[in-house]
Amino acid sequence: MTEALPDTRHPNGKDEVRDPHLDVALLGERLLGRWAEVRHEARALAGKEEFHKIEGLTHVDHRARVFEQLKGLVDHGAVHRAFPARFGGGDDHGGNIAGFEELVTADPSLQIKAGVQWGLFGAAVLHLGTAPHHEKWLPAIMSLQTPGAFAMTEMGHGSDVASIGTTATYDPATEEFVIHTPFKAAWKDFLGNAANDGLAAVVFAQLITQGVNHGVHAFYVPIRDAETKEFLPGVGGEDDGVKGGLNGIDNGRLHFSQVRIPRTNLLNRYGDVAADGTYSSPITSPGRRFFTMLGTLVQGRVSLDGASVAASKIALTSAIRYASQRRQFNAASPVEEEVLLDYQRHQRRLFTRLATTYAANFAHEQLLEKFDAVFSGAEDTDEDRQDLETLAAALKPLSTWHALDTLQECREACGGAGFLIENRFASLRADLDVYATFEGDNTVLLQLVAKRLLADYAKEFRNVDFGVMARFVVAQASDVALHRTGLRQVAQFVADTGLPQKSAQALKEEETQRNLLTDRVQTMVAEAAGALKGANRLPQAKAAALFNENQDQLIEAARAHGELLQWEAFTEGLHSIEDAGTRTVLTWLRDLFGLSLIEKHLSWYLMNGRLSMQRARTVGDYINRLLVRIRPHALDLVDAFGYGQEHIRSTVGSGAELIRQDEARAYYRTLRASGHAPVDEKILLERKKK
Amino acid sequence: MTEALPDTRHPNGKDEVRDPHLDVALLGERLLGRWAEVRHEARALAGKEEFHKIEGLTHVDHRARVFEQLKGLVDHGAVHRAFPARFGGGDDHGGNIAGFEELVTADPSLQIKAGVQWGLFGAAVLHLGTAPHHEKWLPAIMSLQTPGAFAMTEMGHGSDVASIGTTATYDPATEEFVIHTPFKAAWKDFLGNAANDGLAAVVFAQLITQGVNHGVHAFYVPIRDAETKEFLPGVGGEDDGVKGGLNGIDNGRLHFSQVRIPRTNLLNRYGDVAADGTYSSPITSPGRRFFTMLGTLVQGRVSLDGASVAASKIALTSAIRYASQRRQFNAASPVEEEVLLDYQRHQRRLFTRLATTYAANFAHEQLLEKFDAVFSGAEDTDEDRQDLETLAAALKPLSTWHALDTLQECREACGGAGFLIENRFASLRADLDVYATFEGDNTVLLQLVAKRLLADYAKEFRNVDFGVMARFVVAQASDVALHRTGLRQVAQFVADTGLPQKSAQALKEEETQRNLLTDRVQTMVAEAAGALKGANRLPQAKAAALFNENQDQLIEAARAHGELLQWEAFTEGLHSIEDAGTRTVLTWLRDLFGLSLIEKHLSWYLMNGRLSMQRARTVGDYINRLLVRIRPHALDLVDAFGYGQEHIRSTVGSGAELIRQDEARAYYRTLRASGHAPVDEKILLERKKK
Repeated sequence: MTEALPDTRHPNGKDEVRDPHLDVALLGERLLGRWAEVRHEARALAGKEEFHKIEGLTHVDHRARVFEQLKGLVDHGAVHRAFPARFGGGDDHGGNIAGFEELVTADPSLQIKAGVQWGLFGAAVLHLGTAPHHEKWLPAIMSLQTPGAFAMTEMGHGSDVASIGTTATYDPATEEFVIHTPFKAAWKDFLGNAANDGLAAVVFAQLITQGVNHGVHAFYVPIRDAETKEFLPGVGGEDDGVKGGLNGIDNGRLHFSQVRIPRTNLLNRYGDVAADGTYSSPITSPGRRFFTMLGTLVQGRVSLDGASVAASKIALTSAIRYASQRRQFNAASPVEEEVLLDYQRHQRRLFTRLATTYAANFAHEQLLEKFDAVFSGAEDTDEDRQDLETLAAALKPLSTWHALDTLQECREACGGAGFLIENRFASLRADLDVYATFEGDNTVLLQLVAKRLLADYAKEFRNVDFGVMARFVVAQASDVALHRTGLRQVAQFVADTGLPQKSAQALKEEETQRNLLTDRVQTMVAEAAGALKGANRLPQAKAAALFNENQDQLIEAARAHGELLQWEAFTEGLHSIEDAGTRTVLTWLRDLFGLSLIEKHLSWYLMNGRLSMQRARTVGDYINRLLVRIRPHALDLVDAFGYGQEHIRSTVGSGAELIRQDEARAYYRTLRASGHAPVDEKILLERKKK
Repeated sequence: MTEALPDTRHPNGKDEVRDPHLDVALLGERLLGRWAEVRHEARALAGKEEFHKIEGLTHVDHRARVFEQLKGLVDHGAVHRAFPARFGGGDDHGGNIAGFEELVTADPSLQIKAGVQWGLFGAAVLHLGTAPHHEKWLPAIMSLQTPGAFAMTEMGHGSDVASIGTTATYDPATEEFVIHTPFKAAWKDFLGNAANDGLAAVVFAQLITQGVNHGVHAFYVPIRDAETKEFLPGVGGEDDGVKGGLNGIDNGRLHFSQVRIPRTNLLNRYGDVAADGTYSSPITSPGRRFFTMLGTLVQGRVSLDGASVAASKIALTSAIRYASQRRQFNAASPVEEEVLLDYQRHQRRLFTRLATTYAANFAHEQLLEKFDAVFSGAEDTDEDRQDLETLAAALKPLSTWHALDTLQECREACGGAGFLIENRFASLRADLDVYATFEGDNTVLLQLVAKRLLADYAKEFRNVDFGVMARFVVAQASDVALHRTGLRQVAQFVADTGLPQKSAQALKEEETQRNLLTDRVQTMVAEAAGALKGANRLPQAKAAALFNENQDQLIEAARAHGELLQWEAFTEGLHSIEDAGTRTVLTWLRDLFGLSLIEKHLSWYLMNGRLSMQRARTVGDYINRLLVRIRPHALDLVDAFGYGQEHIRSTVGSGAELIRQDEARAYYRTLRASGHAPVDEKILLERKKK
């Protein structure tokens, strides 16, 4: 296939520019995406000192500061973009998330507490409630007059929301719902705004009326007296106390003892109860109804994806700038020490993560556009919503884990200085830690993706959508044939030339990378589908056991799918760049991303006959050559992230190291020139020998 | 080779017991190793509430608490084991480290601050000083009357200690050394005890006398007035402020402006200056002298290795106990939810790390015995010291990274609860973060190991030592021949049978695992040696460039060597266990460790023809089968760590989850039995359909 192309072409095709120059401003705007203007605004706000995290505060003081900052966000009109215009909002769903994400550079607690108030509590009233609810509660929610909690998770049920224990039993005698916590495991837990600030909560509970449980619904429940801040009768709770991070948020627990609320406090967009207790819903299937309700909350996952990319950028900007100034060991010269960024290992540690951050950036922008299309109503079919869910479920795990990995690697790459809180790696890492498990546990999300991939596989290409989501489905037809040919012949899929040099050239071909990444997803899904064939005809326990035996493989297939989506988004992004020099450098970075993925999964490619031993051995070398090419552009590539020192706020990223290095080198230069420098004992010994 | 063994044998040989029972007490004692008694004592101390970390304190309050705790350690006689008997110590070097390590369960800040005072500051006076220094300073150091800093690292030089900028220039007129900081990059930095408590410091500086720089030496320098706690004239400093963790330690910076100290404050064991300024040393080579001095400080690395193992055990105990109680999703039954530990992915996440922790435990005990042999003088040749250095440099990176990985995985495996500070994962992770870069940056340490492996390779098997260190050297002879046969023939090294079932059996053979792991180290070193051949005849800059092009490979070779050492130690450890049931379970766990390593590096085995595609495909399946076998013994395997709730101190590890689960299940059972349970809408719909 790729091998048929003439070998005389310049690496990466005729397109590649020699000694390319990167247009930082152009690339920077492209990275900001469709909501560049909102991002600029939000960054200006996040750059203000009043919104910055102060390190070392107690959690009590930090909470108080963040609550005040939330008021500041209201004053700056920064958090109402997604609300309806009639309440002073902007009906701008994509822009709203873009703006939120940028707050992470000021303080992740600020981002998440704002997310709790307006993205979860407020959004639940907006999306699950109807006009009377909006009129009644949205203005006070938007103004922060009513801080509120989003009471979904329970001590006993996090990922499995459908099984929560809290009940809302309808009493037609008084036309009230009775909200009740039947046992300790049904206490609501980990809720932002619950420990201190919340006056109300959207409580998720099993709706029971006329002896029937209609499943999980959302209810608006006042929890504290607005004046005294005391719990209302029947409501109780606890403070979750200090956490691993995000200590500017007052997470806590809530429980309810026969708390009565008016019937009309049911957020009734997807299910309602008449005065006599009759239940009705526009969605007949309880399963679909449940997923539709939860689906309105996908924005949490979307914004965590974007915030994780932002945090990775902050870390890489600091670490790469520092590595370009910091010197250690003088292997190459008797008097001049090496800059850290010239060490191969250091390049590998930082540039591979830089490449992944670019990929995650472009993928996130596609996710955000999909989100906006669905929530604006522009493309709002069931299929669109499912695609959005799957895309978010595939990307959020990858980007949140990537941020933790990047923050840690950057911290270690700066040595002891990286551990000082002033350099922010440890602080951001601690705050972002929980991103991996909240708003959908990453491992659970990847299983949702796997289920969707299996479902698509089984339904044989129904409803093909040519967006980024459907890459797998589109390419699937060829795969089935491919897979059936067996492993030996499949090896020809990417035919080997036998020459390492040629092989490396083939690996840097875009189509080769695409084929390898796509093929892996397809084959893994097909294999899993084969292993699970007939599972739905087995007794429940046996079917579950069969799934469980393949759980690890399914999760890896989902991860491979997410990686492919990132690669496709990166590739699409770089094709859209007109400047040839910038495109050349970005192509190297995309190649580094693609080849790193292939290297990570190299055993799979070898085991399945997709790459020969000979070709596989060229992957590492080619990655090393890419690192050298990218090296001169590393500072430009982080400059393009567009963050100022008011966002970076680290000593290691400030240039202080360069000043110290220059001072030290000047000192030694002067000393050597003075003729009074002490002679090194080693040199003296060598002289004596001669 | 292995294939020649009869295939009819029971998996893992005749030795394996069916339905084995694990003897927790026996295994527990074996894990405690040679200094079991000291560990019991230290654990009793670490279990006392007065030594426990209080979460959420400001760094100021935390520092004050830890300083008081240090006095408590003195009162309990817990920190003097390594000091000479004539000062009330125990001359017990191995036991001393064993005891220190256990303090990590109380508070890592306590462990490290004690390490600074007695393991670095005190040990420098002990090992680099001579009798008069001991008489003069040790008693006050031991009693904490003189808290002190270990002033080696500078802002500009961490890993490259030889290049520090601080000078100690001898003035024969006054018989004093003048300690001086010539520029900002030469400020001492990250020093425990420097910000507040330190009254003195052991300062490392370039010793200059009679116009000659004799390299880095250590000097005893008073820095603060014992009464006023003010800096002495010429001494200045700064507080490092809040850090990513270990905030119970007052890290800070120090600088010196022409500070004069008596000639006799030079810690003169390895180098001295006479009154007239004449330098003398028992070690002629300045290079060897430098490494000998630094070598006395290896105990820091040894104790971090052990403390990392302890922290991993704490985390796994909590996470595995929780996973055995926590239920989520009811895939297998309509009414009963699954225990997390029955999910394949969950088993993979926790059991592979459990296996690595066992391996690291056994490897650490070997390191500690080697350390004790050297420091007690029992085996104290240059070769012994170099072996100890290399062993510590190979194991410390692996175990410190493993602890961070394990703490994070356990935290995520407990979901939102894992993020609460009361469950300690996030707290321990934050504190242990810096273990990866202090006392030798992990990446730099692995390069030291690689250099040693290359040197051994080049010197062709000189001074063979049959201890754990020398595995590579011993087995090397066969490798050179092997390697020369080329890759195709090498594939026969582990011959394939063509039958997946047989292949899996071979992989579980101890000798197969050993061969695969050993072969990889050997081949990687041989390849690197080949690539670097003739480097020492190149100009410095070219040689450095050549090394740099192979840096990543060298580091990976060193890591492979460390992994092999862990595997060998685990294997040796399990062979020493007499109880057949215990040995059977441990063999599964060792197999899981070995197979996980082989899976991690599977691409290497495939690329280099060591495993066929067919056999490689069995690795994952066999790992999955091992997980199922280990599952019934998981709780026993963490019980064997022997930590009580006073060490674990997490809610998730306390059994609270089981009580909540039982309560919830009882509630639903009663409800179902009552006949008043609401009917599920889904069931109602299904009934209607029929």
